[in-house]
Amino acid sequence: MTGFVSFVSSGPGDPDLLTLKAVDRLQRADAVLFDDLSAGPILAHARAGADLVGVGKRAGRTSPKQDHVSRLLVDYASTGQRVVRLKSGDAGIFGRLEEETTALATAGIGFEIIPGVTAASAAAAAAGIPLTRRLTARRVQFITGADITGALPTDLNWVALADPQATTVVYMGKRTAAALADRLMAQGLPAQTPVMLASGVSTPDQILTRGTLGDIAALVARQGGDTPALILIGPLADSPA
Amino acid sequence: MTGFVSFVSSGPGDPDLLTLKAVDRLQRADAVLFDDLSAGPILAHARAGADLVGVGKRAGRTSPKQDHVSRLLVDYASTGQRVVRLKSGDAGIFGRLEEETTALATAGIGFEIIPGVTAASAAAAAAGIPLTRRLTARRVQFITGADITGALPTDLNWVALADPQATTVVYMGKRTAAALADRLMAQGLPAQTPVMLASGVSTPDQILTRGTLGDIAALVARQGGDTPALILIGPLADSPA
Repeated sequence: MTGFVSFVSSGPGDPDLLTLKAVDRLQRADAVLFDDLSAGPILAHARAGADLVGVGKRAGRTSPKQDHVSRLLVDYASTGQRVVRLKSGDAGIFGRLEEETTALATAGIGFEIIPGVTAASAAAAAAGIPLTRRLTARRVQFITGADITGALPTDLNWVALADPQATTVVYMGKRTAAALADRLMAQGLPAQTPVMLASGVSTPDQILTRGTLGDIAALVARQGGDTPALILIGPLADSPA
Repeated sequence: MTGFVSFVSSGPGDPDLLTLKAVDRLQRADAVLFDDLSAGPILAHARAGADLVGVGKRAGRTSPKQDHVSRLLVDYASTGQRVVRLKSGDAGIFGRLEEETTALATAGIGFEIIPGVTAASAAAAAAGIPLTRRLTARRVQFITGADITGALPTDLNWVALADPQATTVVYMGKRTAAALADRLMAQGLPAQTPVMLASGVSTPDQILTRGTLGDIAALVARQGGDTPALILIGPLADSPA
């Protein structure tokens, strides 16, 4: 008897932003493998006696290698357990999901993916703004500000990102924010382009700070800390909350 | 006494993809203004006696003017009611949210936005794929395939959209799919670029069809019907489900 893995998106942080389906899967799990970011009250939905296994990665900390997590997942499911792999935000967006689904497929273990609320949606909602606007922000795009080494990726599509008529949301972008802003301004995106920095989105620690592309370094410095943050760039970022 | 409006994202269609917060707001509403797309079992969370008001827009049908919806929203809230404005998917993504929040702000009525699961996340999850991939799909972008007249917008950022290393998700793009594909191929995106057409995402009517950019017209013709659909373009679209 082989087990089954539910990849469960835990949303941006607020436990009330879990979906009903996510809660159901947590309640029925024998084991829950979770990242630091999605812990706490969300795990309270697991039944008493379920194994709760932390495998988290967090910016700036050493963390288990990805293939170790995949192996752990296969091991748990191979014993016939019903496993939940909790992923912060939406599992399909910068969640390193594919490494784990591939490992399961190779091992012949079934899985499902429960989509969730991505942090960009929650940050915009908290700010009282949409991510798109007719005519002036017809395109919304998500990138990460850090590659696997933590540096700003060098081969991004700069024309796509320097578009004044798009909303760009940068995940994990706090450390490389100044370098990204410099690159976008060199590409022609005006220094006055509105920017919002959103830390601890949807949690009690949430901080939203507004500014411009030109003073993004000061914005980041003012918020400080290691709290994961999103950067929202584009015409909607300065709309009234 | 003025009322309060909760913009509640109802997710892609599956009522189990509502968030706990969305359910809470529905349960406490005096009035729920909903679009056709998000009706049915989702409205069952409203309490008996709540006003359920359909204000829906649907591709190809005549629908109430947007300013009529805004006025209705203000009218309901002005009588002191707790109003839920249900929006399909994530309210902030192609939800025409800003017209309504602006009307409320002008009328001095408070509101909140509850983010939700956008259809792109649900379509990818259903297909067993993520929306991003390290190195080869570092950027994910969402556009609509139809402007207010139903035509393909002419002023999109074609360089951004013809990027073979991005995942592009086209909302409301079924009718203009062939024109979009032609434009992207003219811009240099290979005809062999994988494409997935996803209709009725997360509902019992869900259909996922895979093909390539070059045969997108045939894909659309084969699915037929008026069911709202997403088009997912990029290297992840042909990953094994």
